[in-house]
Amino acid sequence: MDKAPILWITGIPASGKTTLARRLVRYFRSLGTAAEVLDGDDIRKIISSDLGFSKEDRLENNRRIGWIARLLARNGVMAVVASVSPYLEGRKNARDEARADDIRFIEIYAKCSQAIAQKRDTRGIYGQKNVTGLGAPYEVPTTAEIVIYTERVGPDEALAQVLERLAR
Amino acid sequence: MDKAPILWITGIPASGKTTLARRLVRYFRSLGTAAEVLDGDDIRKIISSDLGFSKEDRLENNRRIGWIARLLARNGVMAVVASVSPYLEGRKNARDEARADDIRFIEIYAKCSQAIAQKRDTRGIYGQKNVTGLGAPYEVPTTAEIVIYTERVGPDEALAQVLERLAR
Repeated sequence: MDKAPILWITGIPASGKTTLARRLVRYFRSLGTAAEVLDGDDIRKIISSDLGFSKEDRLENNRRIGWIARLLARNGVMAVVASVSPYLEGRKNARDEARADDIRFIEIYAKCSQAIAQKRDTRGIYGQKNVTGLGAPYEVPTTAEIVIYTERVGPDEALAQVLERLAR
Repeated sequence: MDKAPILWITGIPASGKTTLARRLVRYFRSLGTAAEVLDGDDIRKIISSDLGFSKEDRLENNRRIGWIARLLARNGVMAVVASVSPYLEGRKNARDEARADDIRFIEIYAKCSQAIAQKRDTRGIYGQKNVTGLGAPYEVPTTAEIVIYTERVGPDEALAQVLERLAR
């Protein structure tokens, strides 16, 4: 059984992570490759309903997503994570644990200014408390393999750019 | 992508669930079939560290295991759950949700008397609080597709019996 990679999309709320993740999974499935979106918001509801938004709880949520992603990846199912995952420490842990399991880990930074993200926000995320970028910090990636300027490019172009970078 | 089944092994603590689950997964992997053990005790540590042993918390843990099992199964990875999952309601929910996703759900009851389980208990489970069968109830399965008398048969025979029943 060949292992699949983990694509870990990070970025502030409403930066286009979930849209990109869904496009990627749809594309890979169309090629017959097993792939799943692990959406941070969904995981919170389903697996982490107990967790809040403290740093500790966010890291714990991050850890759980990482564990589920590895479970899929080591069975040949590509895991495409869409999660704010605001802390360098949390993303580093996810990367280190994937590597320890000999799983390829590709960090994708959905880079978008907060002004644009807030403008695009259709789900009212920025009206909520503890939103990353407003009340809570977002630590900009320093090790991302791929950066997509979701502020400037639409979903089709974002998908094309990721695929082009993955192919290299 | 063909969906894989969920094999859900239920039974009181130290009834031989994990041993059977590991044998099953080892067997299927040897045939090149992707399979994973989802062990209730592990899941508690990794995903449900927040949960206690109230009925509500046990059902919530059950729900999370079911969600992860479906995530695997719908991507062609057989999920072999080893979990006390003491409530009829919890197991029924897992079954109903699998069916809603068009996933085959096979309940396996590791049937063992408490006297024998306590005697076999190498991990000191029965010394702990809230152990199912002592302080907490275990609702005997009424819908199990397969019943294995783990009190009478060893791991090799248990494996053979499950495979034989699955083949029918």
